[in-house]
Amino acid sequence: MDIQALQQNLRDFAAARNWKQFHTPKNLTTALMVEAAELAEIFQWMTAEESQAAPLDPATKVRIADEVADVLLYLLQVADHCAIDLPVAVANKLVKNAIKHPEPSRR
Amino acid sequence: MDIQALQQNLRDFAAARNWKQFHTPKNLTTALMVEAAELAEIFQWMTAEESQAAPLDPATKVRIADEVADVLLYLLQVADHCAIDLPVAVANKLVKNAIKHPEPSRR
Amino acid sequence: MDIQALQQNLRDFAAARNWKQFHTPKNLTTALMVEAAELAEIFQWMTAEESQAAPLDPATKVRIADEVADVLLYLLQVADHCAIDLPVAVANKLVKNAIKHPEPSRR
Amino acid sequence: MDIQALQQNLRDFAAARNWKQFHTPKNLTTALMVEAAELAEIFQWMTAEESQAAPLDPATKVRIADEVADVLLYLLQVADHCAIDLPVAVANKLVKNAIKHPEPSRR
Repeated sequence: MDIQALQQNLRDFAAARNWKQFHTPKNLTTALMVEAAELAEIFQWMTAEESQAAPLDPATKVRIADEVADVLLYLLQVADHCAIDLPVAVANKLVKNAIKHPEPSRR
Repeated sequence: MDIQALQQNLRDFAAARNWKQFHTPKNLTTALMVEAAELAEIFQWMTAEESQAAPLDPATKVRIADEVADVLLYLLQVADHCAIDLPVAVANKLVKNAIKHPEPSRR
Repeated sequence: MDIQALQQNLRDFAAARNWKQFHTPKNLTTALMVEAAELAEIFQWMTAEESQAAPLDPATKVRIADEVADVLLYLLQVADHCAIDLPVAVANKLVKNAIKHPEPSRR
Repeated sequence: MDIQALQQNLRDFAAARNWKQFHTPKNLTTALMVEAAELAEIFQWMTAEESQAAPLDPATKVRIADEVADVLLYLLQVADHCAIDLPVAVANKLVKNAIKHPEPSRR
């Protein structure tokens, strides 16, 4: 996935619709949270097992995929507007997570 | 960014900590939403302008980057557990968005 | 507002629809978060001033009121299923907040 | 629970701390969503059964009660700043819900 090309695409898409004024980190992070809620809503009344089986239904899988994509598109825009290098941010966080949650045998 | 390698890394990380039982789509999408809220919390009392300036402060930028990474890591796990191909999902959603929101001149 | 009567009403409503099985604290808190996101969505692209003016539009006010009510209805159910006395919980939290955030002149 | 007295209390609390400038419907609804996420976070890795048993643990119950109160306090402020009468909003929404979800025997 070419992150920078996607971010440029999203910038152009917003500029062509005169949305640039709306795309502050404040607004984009709220929009991201709203999309994340729409994704969680799909599973909110399911049991654990039903949620695991849900993607086997093609229509549900499309719905999940669309919400997952919405979350990712806003996340790419948040990263872009905050000048955050996503692969670097992820690599740093993985290190922090490994320190915070050591493997049981190493505890 | 190598999505599949990251997803395998996250699967291994979870397996080594005996977290596999917790990683249902239901739980992972809730966790994703919680992380998205932690990202939005950073900006919740800021003005639009303050939110744009926030990443200029190095400590705030690290905080944003960590939350952005947390959201992405859960999103990668949701996609993995739902067998969703992220680049394909994004490409499909971009087409839908372009149809839903045509450029003003084409309206 | 008679909290206990509302909670009984919501219990009866759920029982009559065979929803009792879905109404765990886990599911109800996720549903509450989803409704809170729908409320925030109304304001997500507005400026601070636009959000203050939004309730002056009757149709928008109804939309806000409906989402506010949805949040409250789930909150009442969460409190009910967790045996939490809302007025007591609020009174306790107000004391904690006053300690956490003393008045500037008292600092 | 005396809603109007609580709302006046919250207005005074905010005014004494010079927070009035931050308390727009836009910001308050985001803060509400963040608190709702903190409530959901308590239950995110629990099974349905564990979430039902969680309030039996006194420390967990205090944590739940505090988050429930935080959500309610922001909800009261949103309603106040949007001039929404909570009992009326709830009564209206209950009627809409009954129409949207008729009892099975009436279907």
